[in-house]
Amino acid sequence: MQNLELLFNPRGIAVIGASPDFGRPGGQTMQVLTERGYQGGIYPVNPKYDAVAGRPCFASIESVPHPCDVAVIALPAAQVPQVVADCGGHGVRYAVVLGGGFREGGEGGRLLEEQMLKNARAHGMRLIGPNCLGLVNVHARAYSAFGSVTRPPFLEPGAVSAVIQSGGFGNSIVVRCAAAGIGFRYVVASGNEADITTPELIDAFVDDPQTRVILAYIEGLGDGRAFLAAARRALEAGKPIVAWKAGNTRQGMRAAASHTANMAGSYDIYRAAFREAGIIEVSDMEEAADFVRTLLGQPPAAGKNVAVMGGSGGSAVVFCDAADAYGLTLARLAPATMKVLRENLPSMAALDNPIDYAAGFISDQTAPRFQRAVEAVLADPGIHQLGLLFATVIGRTGWYGAKALAEASQRYRKPVLVFSSVPRETAPEMFEVLGQARIPIMFSVNRVAQAMSMLADYAHARQRSTQTGAVAAAPAPTVVLAAASGVLDEHESKEILRAFDIPVTADRLLPAEPVTPKNAEGLFFPVALKVVSRDIAHKSDIGGVRLDIADAAQLVAASAEMLKSVHQSAPQAALSGLLVSPMIRDGIETIVGAVSDPVFGPVVAFGMGGVYAETLKDLTYRLAPFGVGTARVMIGELRASPIFGGLRGQPPRDVEALAHALAAVSQLAWTMRDRLAELDINPMLVRPRDSGVVAADALVVLREDFVGIGPDKLLMKGSHPV
Amino acid sequence: MQNLELLFNPRGIAVIGASPDFGRPGGQTMQVLTERGYQGGIYPVNPKYDAVAGRPCFASIESVPHPCDVAVIALPAAQVPQVVADCGGHGVRYAVVLGGGFREGGEGGRLLEEQMLKNARAHGMRLIGPNCLGLVNVHARAYSAFGSVTRPPFLEPGAVSAVIQSGGFGNSIVVRCAAAGIGFRYVVASGNEADITTPELIDAFVDDPQTRVILAYIEGLGDGRAFLAAARRALEAGKPIVAWKAGNTRQGMRAAASHTANMAGSYDIYRAAFREAGIIEVSDMEEAADFVRTLLGQPPAAGKNVAVMGGSGGSAVVFCDAADAYGLTLARLAPATMKVLRENLPSMAALDNPIDYAAGFISDQTAPRFQRAVEAVLADPGIHQLGLLFATVIGRTGWYGAKALAEASQRYRKPVLVFSSVPRETAPEMFEVLGQARIPIMFSVNRVAQAMSMLADYAHARQRSTQTGAVAAAPAPTVVLAAASGVLDEHESKEILRAFDIPVTADRLLPAEPVTPKNAEGLFFPVALKVVSRDIAHKSDIGGVRLDIADAAQLVAASAEMLKSVHQSAPQAALSGLLVSPMIRDGIETIVGAVSDPVFGPVVAFGMGGVYAETLKDLTYRLAPFGVGTARVMIGELRASPIFGGLRGQPPRDVEALAHALAAVSQLAWTMRDRLAELDINPMLVRPRDSGVVAADALVVLREDFVGIGPDKLLMKGSHPV
Repeated sequence: MQNLELLFNPRGIAVIGASPDFGRPGGQTMQVLTERGYQGGIYPVNPKYDAVAGRPCFASIESVPHPCDVAVIALPAAQVPQVVADCGGHGVRYAVVLGGGFREGGEGGRLLEEQMLKNARAHGMRLIGPNCLGLVNVHARAYSAFGSVTRPPFLEPGAVSAVIQSGGFGNSIVVRCAAAGIGFRYVVASGNEADITTPELIDAFVDDPQTRVILAYIEGLGDGRAFLAAARRALEAGKPIVAWKAGNTRQGMRAAASHTANMAGSYDIYRAAFREAGIIEVSDMEEAADFVRTLLGQPPAAGKNVAVMGGSGGSAVVFCDAADAYGLTLARLAPATMKVLRENLPSMAALDNPIDYAAGFISDQTAPRFQRAVEAVLADPGIHQLGLLFATVIGRTGWYGAKALAEASQRYRKPVLVFSSVPRETAPEMFEVLGQARIPIMFSVNRVAQAMSMLADYAHARQRSTQTGAVAAAPAPTVVLAAASGVLDEHESKEILRAFDIPVTADRLLPAEPVTPKNAEGLFFPVALKVVSRDIAHKSDIGGVRLDIADAAQLVAASAEMLKSVHQSAPQAALSGLLVSPMIRDGIETIVGAVSDPVFGPVVAFGMGGVYAETLKDLTYRLAPFGVGTARVMIGELRASPIFGGLRGQPPRDVEALAHALAAVSQLAWTMRDRLAELDINPMLVRPRDSGVVAADALVVLREDFVGIGPDKLLMKGSHPV
Repeated sequence: MQNLELLFNPRGIAVIGASPDFGRPGGQTMQVLTERGYQGGIYPVNPKYDAVAGRPCFASIESVPHPCDVAVIALPAAQVPQVVADCGGHGVRYAVVLGGGFREGGEGGRLLEEQMLKNARAHGMRLIGPNCLGLVNVHARAYSAFGSVTRPPFLEPGAVSAVIQSGGFGNSIVVRCAAAGIGFRYVVASGNEADITTPELIDAFVDDPQTRVILAYIEGLGDGRAFLAAARRALEAGKPIVAWKAGNTRQGMRAAASHTANMAGSYDIYRAAFREAGIIEVSDMEEAADFVRTLLGQPPAAGKNVAVMGGSGGSAVVFCDAADAYGLTLARLAPATMKVLRENLPSMAALDNPIDYAAGFISDQTAPRFQRAVEAVLADPGIHQLGLLFATVIGRTGWYGAKALAEASQRYRKPVLVFSSVPRETAPEMFEVLGQARIPIMFSVNRVAQAMSMLADYAHARQRSTQTGAVAAAPAPTVVLAAASGVLDEHESKEILRAFDIPVTADRLLPAEPVTPKNAEGLFFPVALKVVSRDIAHKSDIGGVRLDIADAAQLVAASAEMLKSVHQSAPQAALSGLLVSPMIRDGIETIVGAVSDPVFGPVVAFGMGGVYAETLKDLTYRLAPFGVGTARVMIGELRASPIFGGLRGQPPRDVEALAHALAAVSQLAWTMRDRLAELDINPMLVRPRDSGVVAADALVVLREDFVGIGPDKLLMKGSHPV
């Protein structure tokens, strides 16, 4: 692709609205380009001045005599659409629109943004912003930007590219990473993303050979699937995305709505999507910096079997706490490893992992022994990663330790991470040697464990992406319904499930009148009786559900009572019939749902049923469609999932049938994505192994915006009758 | 108290085992005392040398001619008991025993530790250690210590005293706090705590007028109640304890067992105890440092209604996320406050909390307006705390902001915290001014929210401690049982519950023979029938439970079948009878238990019952005894507690009766603390409001070590028959 190449490396940058007042946006751009020594063309444009920052100032973009690929526009919103058109006409390829007053400012601004975009497209020009700090190419010192990204601390060149949806906070993350010694390549504050969006920028970073890690601060995404497609490309390219998603909570969403014009999707769905695409989520500064440093310096991890070595028993205790929290295993060492440790570590050392080589062991004389021990652990095939807990080690001791570690880590492609609590000035040689070896030093034992877990999860996501790939959508089945919009009744809803091979109870739909003995013939009792009506959302509240009906006589009586009760409570409701369902007594209640997420489209939710589990929100999500393998993983993600294995003398459950049903629901949600507002299967009963699952109740809601599309048939996209 | 005064401020320190080799422990102590300029007496003791570190060296403690209150003993374990006796005989008040080889090294070491302790007690001498780094009085530069605490970075004097149970890692926490600018008073690495323990050291810190915050790194406590008593003294004195508890998890506990000789109590119980005593728990380095700085610099918080101001919308979004996570409310501002904001902030500012004064607002001209806005928010009676999100602000802007904030915060006793992401060198004046005002700058928005939550929780704990105080134990009731040890049967167990006014089902105990119609007279059906035997732990597995028995005839038949089934499956079991219980159908299942924790003694556990809730471990704990108020709080702590309010058309539950029952269980657990190994009430059924609660099944296990105390009666401590 490389299609944003000239945005990052323009032959010249025009600053439209350039000002000699370095407090103003157009002044800030001029100042930073000049003082930081950008080598491309710098063309201030402002009819008010002859010169700005010692350079000739042009009256308009048309009078700029040199090739100029980027125009930084620092003008009030009302002037921007015309200026964009002028730039496009003059062959400028990209505009970076700094100012606000567009979509985020109401209807007038929205129209301006629309017009600006139209003018840009007419000339094949692309836009960054509006309402943004702009972008920086750190290597080229090209600042198409203003505000904090143009002020100290200035970034060092490096291999991290960042897209930040809020300039102020996003740049705070960048600054904290820089303070931890991380260098940058491109930093783009993307603002309203009227044209160029986060996914497109990630694509560009993936294509940039000098970018190795991608950092993203995200408040909201317009098109979640496009973002995931870009994330999957990054995953395949082995360029990790470290992402901070903000605006996740109730109070957070309120602020997000007033800050950007993006609609934030539900955080649970974001998390599920991020995990599937191998995105590394962070939610604090030090975490972001430590993760990025680890990803830049360390090789992929083969797994979560780790070893730690240290001279401080307490650090090992704390590491073990963290290992439990982050799912690491302190693996048993091989006999050959133990032998080397026994030969080289002091007699008072604890050789079992966590290895305690005893405080004060490392010295001039013992450094080679320490190194042999480290190499033995790294060579152990059962160990995937190594943590060194140097704790308060300083001075020459730290230097010996660092040298041994740096040399050993050259020979083995396994991650090595270091915990140290001391300030750099007490152990300058240790910091220097480890820094050169790109072995990250963390001030937190917990973070060492967390980073190990992250490395293993990322490697696992890469592996998974090469193994499985996307699930193909199945062809749409055919169902004919006398319905086209809004809430469907239970019988209709189950018809749709059945069409997608989702098991439902073997119901019998009877007319909406008292059951006759003849109608009850052939039924297997006990049964449940339910009223069927699109107008009755909560059947049981008005006597519309009767369970445990033992025989035909009871059914006849119950049906008469039910109709009477329903007519009294909801006289206006149109009844489609009475539904007789078998009573299923051996199922565990679960809930399966599907929603149409505004960001990610069709999403399937799965959780335990019953009032306890619902209160505890034991739920998991996946973007539709997905296969049976993913469905199995979902089932295992519930906190209560041990229940499916059989607890308290209960039988193990038919998890395979459940996984197939979940995958089928995901096919339904994907196929009907343009029609489906909501699907609830509550309960989906999970019976003992080999007995299957069955949807005992179901509710399908079609989207309001499809009301009236077809009078008789629910037409699928692509005109399949459903 | 002040009874450790001479430990921290000795007239002289003898170093027994002093060495001219500064690599050896006795050399390290000499080196640091000399080089850091300790002003008290320094007396090296070692018959091998005439002088050490330029001072005359004595052959034995007896030959030291000056008063000497502390002896630092750097000798092999085998020599220590005698040396302790010598020191005691010579009037030394405290020994700091650095070396290992005691309790943690097996039986021989345990005996040495015992002898050492005996010798010390014979002379009224107290001990720190053994197996420790020793202690430092930072103000006096008195190092009774070796290892990392005697090496750079050296601590600055300050108001934090620390007790650390692992020298290596504990000192790492201290070093990270020091790197964040925190000064220290006393640091004690307490090692095996053979004599002076963590609680006693906390007591001493509470009594030290110059200590304002206490830091504790804890791997295990011998006497949890003593620790809590010290913590409550600290709470009453307004000296917050910031504690890191390690060795909490499965892998963590394994390492802890090999590292110290303490048995670690269950982490859940630690957490419950810490929370009750107002202890501020931390589990990472930066968190510890940020909390300590906040507690040192900021006044108490009246609550969790907070305001934030900033120029970066993204920071506000992230703060809102964190506010949700930490239970803060972004409170609505008063009209008077809004008026001041409107008058002083720029027109594009967002005045609603979170307040966005727009990036770039603060300047020479606007600094007074910014200050008026800050003061208005601080003056707002609905706002308890204020966060300033400076993000990437640097230079003069930062200075103006800091000055305004520092001045405003003088006038209002409300916590003010700052988020900034920039390195100190880009905003030296801002860091300086805020540092002088003791307003903590945090590099993490999340941490600002977390610290606000911590301040409010701490203030709440202080308030609670002055309001409630400890619950008095009730007098022990009288019960007579033909049993004294091990597992009691259901009927006996319920008799004990009944004696403590815990509601149990109205059971009838029948002989262990088929029920006769006469025996069934007067029963209200339906009933449950259960076999009663101390030898049958799991009744239902062998047909020993029958539910829903509808009438006397069914009962007669069921009893015969049950006896047959039980005799077949457990022919050797001694049966005490058959228990007939009413069927309770309107109760929510909960579990109430009591355990005898090795660290904290009797503890009550409460949680939701049923297989889901048990799988999800929805449980809470409290140390017994406690009152009804605490029990109410416990009930609210369950994640599923909304269920008690009535969900899905279910009635609200009798939470008051439940709270009384929990308090009663806590009285039972406390009164019987010397006898009770375990108590399980499973289920405790919580019926609709005004219908009470009832223990439907119960299991009491008496401690093995009480087997055989009394043949006929279960005697309580203090000789009450129970």
